[in-house]
Amino acid sequence: MSAGKKTTPSRPRPADRVEHWDIETDVAIVGFGGAGACAAIEAADAGAEVALFEVASASGGSTELSSAEVYLGGSGGTRVQKACGYEDTTKAMFDYLMAAGGDLADEAKVRAYCEESTKHFDWLVSMGAPYKNTEYKERAIMALTDDCLLYTGSEKCWPFREIAEPCPRGHNLEIEGDNGGPLLMKTLTDQVEKRNVRIEYNARALTLIHNVEGEVLGLVVRIDNKELNVRARRGVILCAGGFVMNPKMLKQYCPRIADGPLPIGNPGDTGSGLLMGQAVGGALVNMDQHFITLPYYPPSSLTYGIFVNAQAQRFVNEDCYHARVASRALDQLGGKAYLIVSAEDYGHPSFMNAPIVGTGETVEELAEEVGLDSEMLRHTVDFYSRHAAQGEDPLFHKSAEWLKAMNAPYAALDCSLGEGAIYAAFTLGGLDTLPTGEVLTTEKDPIKGLYAAGRTACGIPRSASGYASGLSVGDATFFGRAAGRASAAHEPGL
Amino acid sequence: MSAGKKTTPSRPRPADRVEHWDIETDVAIVGFGGAGACAAIEAADAGAEVALFEVASASGGSTELSSAEVYLGGSGGTRVQKACGYEDTTKAMFDYLMAAGGDLADEAKVRAYCEESTKHFDWLVSMGAPYKNTEYKERAIMALTDDCLLYTGSEKCWPFREIAEPCPRGHNLEIEGDNGGPLLMKTLTDQVEKRNVRIEYNARALTLIHNVEGEVLGLVVRIDNKELNVRARRGVILCAGGFVMNPKMLKQYCPRIADGPLPIGNPGDTGSGLLMGQAVGGALVNMDQHFITLPYYPPSSLTYGIFVNAQAQRFVNEDCYHARVASRALDQLGGKAYLIVSAEDYGHPSFMNAPIVGTGETVEELAEEVGLDSEMLRHTVDFYSRHAAQGEDPLFHKSAEWLKAMNAPYAALDCSLGEGAIYAAFTLGGLDTLPTGEVLTTEKDPIKGLYAAGRTACGIPRSASGYASGLSVGDATFFGRAAGRASAAHEPGL
Repeated sequence: MSAGKKTTPSRPRPADRVEHWDIETDVAIVGFGGAGACAAIEAADAGAEVALFEVASASGGSTELSSAEVYLGGSGGTRVQKACGYEDTTKAMFDYLMAAGGDLADEAKVRAYCEESTKHFDWLVSMGAPYKNTEYKERAIMALTDDCLLYTGSEKCWPFREIAEPCPRGHNLEIEGDNGGPLLMKTLTDQVEKRNVRIEYNARALTLIHNVEGEVLGLVVRIDNKELNVRARRGVILCAGGFVMNPKMLKQYCPRIADGPLPIGNPGDTGSGLLMGQAVGGALVNMDQHFITLPYYPPSSLTYGIFVNAQAQRFVNEDCYHARVASRALDQLGGKAYLIVSAEDYGHPSFMNAPIVGTGETVEELAEEVGLDSEMLRHTVDFYSRHAAQGEDPLFHKSAEWLKAMNAPYAALDCSLGEGAIYAAFTLGGLDTLPTGEVLTTEKDPIKGLYAAGRTACGIPRSASGYASGLSVGDATFFGRAAGRASAAHEPGL
Repeated sequence: MSAGKKTTPSRPRPADRVEHWDIETDVAIVGFGGAGACAAIEAADAGAEVALFEVASASGGSTELSSAEVYLGGSGGTRVQKACGYEDTTKAMFDYLMAAGGDLADEAKVRAYCEESTKHFDWLVSMGAPYKNTEYKERAIMALTDDCLLYTGSEKCWPFREIAEPCPRGHNLEIEGDNGGPLLMKTLTDQVEKRNVRIEYNARALTLIHNVEGEVLGLVVRIDNKELNVRARRGVILCAGGFVMNPKMLKQYCPRIADGPLPIGNPGDTGSGLLMGQAVGGALVNMDQHFITLPYYPPSSLTYGIFVNAQAQRFVNEDCYHARVASRALDQLGGKAYLIVSAEDYGHPSFMNAPIVGTGETVEELAEEVGLDSEMLRHTVDFYSRHAAQGEDPLFHKSAEWLKAMNAPYAALDCSLGEGAIYAAFTLGGLDTLPTGEVLTTEKDPIKGLYAAGRTACGIPRSASGYASGLSVGDATFFGRAAGRASAAHEPGL
């Protein structure tokens, strides 16, 4: 042990300083959220002895706080997709996710995820997760009914609908209200408890233990105020969440969401898993990227409106996914974004809370109140309305179902960050991993004995502009399982 | 030594595996470009024994390939600023650089840089760098005359001119043509050679040597095909450039410039310095950010034109710095950018090489050829011209000197990335450091014995949208010196 030095995630412990192993196991998992739970189940089912360390006093993680939708499809469709009349293809799902990820996409992971997605659905069902064979057809951020299938991304929107055949892939659990997270975590926790898994709550992972060859042999955990050396013969899997609750790391890596947006996550999302992995050579990638939402629907009628920037120009097709709109809004010069809506379509947005900063019987009156150039706004509204009346949006190709001419009177909601509208965000950067969960160095060499999943890794979701609800829990559970299997199959170290 | 393992930057060598020190010195510097040269001079002048390891067979680095302008000012002005009638203030310089950096700015570094900037100018002069007391008044990417002072950023442009009193701060060396880099490097190399500095060319730094407490004790270099252990009692300074020549790292960290833009840099910009620092716990920050240029001037007459996106909307004030325009162009939905210009203002852009994709006696004809919505383009041109004729740009506040009504006939240049226009880029991510050059962990703890400067560190320039010419060489030479001083003053390790 490094005498007199505090044990921190950034300072790995050399194996030759370990005098005694306090706990020995095959697979050690840090974090009992969705990823950690799935990793534990699969590692145990592969015959490995598993120890699970959770800093909180119960399982849950950020999965429990979420709606726990999962984004799944391809291969002809999940049971629910088929029952609802959709024949999803792996190609369409792959093409959509690659387009959504753009140059940030991890092709190998997207391919694995799309090819095995329906099997993952079946596995979740086999674990006891209930999904009803019904579709929720409203434009919504989440289904508050117990219906299952819904569009949760920008599949039906330009430019994606021209790239891949649209199909709904969000799967909502069979439970009323926004209660999917607790249900999924209870389901998975029950399964973990049935297996050969040692669970330690109130156990803080402090750092990894590695040898001079760079192989990870175990980790240091603090339980009951004692530092224990844990030997993990087949590997350590880091499933300790992201870093949205670490203000220093946000400022350092992801300053755009450091001040202002509400953090989405649990108090354990301090980045400790990322730091532990980095300290033994793991590459942190995509660290500037984040999910961010401007939840301007429901009511869906606001989608008939138009977003404009400080120049009174539109900048996005308003029918796409809320995080894509939020991301585009933040990219506007001067950072201003207003939602202009006809009074007939106005409804108080349940979540967004954006202030009304102008109303007008005419566009000019509205522009004056908002402080926009009235001639520009007049042209923007006229041009939009004239084409919308014909079911067309020649600039941004908003879908016909959301196109209609705007009528006076009008209202303007200030959706600029920092002006009262609710923005909420979480991080999308993490350790670079293979589809097996093996952590990679910057030179793309796997670090022996080290795996990561969930938001400790950088997974399928890579940006707000390409995000779809269900990608995080889908990714965490899917790649958590993969890491559990890979670690269990890893030949024990010396 | 790790038997049978290749020595790579990502795998530090534990000090207890070092059987013999082949070279011993106070300060070891990796890289003999602008940063390394300045670090060596200052460390030697502080009385330290210095060894400089350069992978190439001569000094130079990317500084030699650049124009070697330096961005300096504040404190009432440099000698040249004063001679040209400018009384620059530290506050104006600080406010400008903070606004340009936005939420990515490193306030402590910006402050140090602004406060000591005129002294740094005097030091460069004392080293022998010649600067003439003249101003170059053309809008240009660089002065091709031997004149010194010019505006090299967006100081006179909205929104910056409203935030900080504009002042030119680009200092060009007294030499005709684009020959500043070789002159500056010859000047600095001569100074290094005069001092107590051991220079090893053709010496590849392989990895750092650290002890179990995480302190850096030296490094491993390969000279004449032998791996040598170098003891650096007072510290190692990494000045090994950025990673624009490493395609894998670009894809992993900065995919936007991985394909397409020309890389600006020298073959040694492989990221090895970043990897060495990361391997001992250094945090890599700002890794997604890069400089990128679309060199659309000269001729400056093209600045009378307007840039539009695929929606035929303007998106930037065209008088600002070329990298800011390039950055905004890449942010446009669909990635399209066209420069629309009146034939009377057209001149073949010397560097940009963008294809003419439309000409027209009317805007409608032009729009048809380019494939833009003709009504939108008509409105954009009309609105712009009508206000420009009155010296106003209500949307983007382009400066009055670049405003005039557009007249038929028109031409359109396709400036979209990948359509023929020249884009060129380099990386702006690197090791997080203090103003002293001390390398920081993600937990913001300095790593004892390790310093970085130049593009191995993340410095003053943080983004293309806030870039100004002269920031890179200014930053490299300034913080190279700081690292040399700090390292020389560092108490020798055990």
